Amino acid sequence: MLSKNTVKFIKSLHQKKYRIESGKFFVEGGKSVTEVLHSDFLVETVFATEEFKTRNSDLLRAFKGEVFTATPNQLEGLGQYQSNESALAIVQMKENTSFDLSSGEFAIALDNVRDPGNLGTIIRIADWYGIRKLVFSPQTAEFYNPKVIQSSMGSFTRVRFFYEDLTMVFSKWNRPVYGAFLKGENLHQITQIEPGIILMGNESNGISAGLEKWITRRITIPGFGNAESLNVAIATAIICDNLKRLQTP
Amino acid sequence: MLSKNTVKFIKSLHQKKYRIESGKFFVEGGKSVTEVLHSDFLVETVFATEEFKTRNSDLLRAFKGEVFTATPNQLEGLGQYQSNESALAIVQMKENTSFDLSSGEFAIALDNVRDPGNLGTIIRIADWYGIRKLVFSPQTAEFYNPKVIQSSMGSFTRVRFFYEDLTMVFSKWNRPVYGAFLKGENLHQITQIEPGIILMGNESNGISAGLEKWITRRITIPGFGNAESLNVAIATAIICDNLKRLQTP
Repeated sequence: MLSKNTVKFIKSLHQKKYRIESGKFFVEGGKSVTEVLHSDFLVETVFATEEFKTRNSDLLRAFKGEVFTATPNQLEGLGQYQSNESALAIVQMKENTSFDLSSGEFAIALDNVRDPGNLGTIIRIADWYGIRKLVFSPQTAEFYNPKVIQSSMGSFTRVRFFYEDLTMVFSKWNRPVYGAFLKGENLHQITQIEPGIILMGNESNGISAGLEKWITRRITIPGFGNAESLNVAIATAIICDNLKRLQTP
Repeated sequence: MLSKNTVKFIKSLHQKKYRIESGKFFVEGGKSVTEVLHSDFLVETVFATEEFKTRNSDLLRAFKGEVFTATPNQLEGLGQYQSNESALAIVQMKENTSFDLSSGEFAIALDNVRDPGNLGTIIRIADWYGIRKLVFSPQTAEFYNPKVIQSSMGSFTRVRFFYEDLTMVFSKWNRPVYGAFLKGENLHQITQIEPGIILMGNESNGISAGLEKWITRRITIPGFGNAESLNVAIATAIICDNLKRLQTP
């Protein structure tokens, strides 16, 4: 059974203010809930249908927190999904740590990417390309926003992220910084790369003027038609795909 | 001034039923409205702020339809944008024509891509890569859905599209059909390609079983991490980027 207070608390987590106050966020949908249970996130409570509980009995037996039974209807009332047939989890936020990157690794830096759907999609792309670290300017969308969690399709459990002043990050950085511009090196013609940070800018304004000077490799996604630009998540995917292609022997 | 009937009519165009009944759809936002005015779509009416009218006076002088003045507040009440500072247009749908493709061209075929945001993003990607034709299964999202128009960022004016039974299309087709699968040719290792149709599947179910047999080139986007899949628009972009790279001397 779900008490009124529980329902009220979970609903409060739709708002950033209450997420920050409590240090908690929620994860919904069967696949994402199983992934967060397998991850190093601390899950406090799981609300699940009988069917989910049966299907994941081993996983739930190993779980130290509380498990409540809920109907699909109740789950839909708690989360943002229009249909959630299986589970929802309350999870503790991780503590902030400082960004660092070893020399063979790529990282993605986001300069004020504001749309939670874009952020979640970029996290999924990073996970696909084996990029384990993302560093966000303070104005970038909130990692724990339910839409970010949802659109990352479980990939939020497999990346590390850091909210930092990007100027501070770059001022201490001496390896490549890749940034997309209209007049840079043609991404299809590059033959040599070194791992580094891939910097992506805001949906409307691109990379801030103050950060441009830190970019050491200006790259261009070649266009063949008439669209003026690409969505930031699409551009991130294409850059990651090309850099990983060039990095792979 | 906007009459009550005009407001009611525009609001009805948020629903597919009334779009089909009237054969009309709406386009909102200054940039998209100027692009549709420059295109071969037949624009019937423009609702615009004084500021938009001044800024686009030449374009509006050449325009044969009616122009009404509206405030930003009125425009926001008409469309789906939370902020529309400039214009909204009522536009006639185009007549259906039959899909055809010349031998040097690529086309994108979508098998039941249901999310309007994905469809609009794919249209923008096609336009970026100079792919001018898209063929959609009947269950694919509706081209004229306001979210499709919005997320295409004006690219809807520069592509041709066809709703067709894809089995019928492929049964008459004798050039390559590219389809993404987990175990296909590694897209980064392909060296030779010929233009053809790029077939992308539904968000949850991928390419329908009935269409698989028409695929002549099974390709795989190489993954380097742990994400199980990529969003369909992201996958489309990566495939287009690689095929265009291979096609370009």
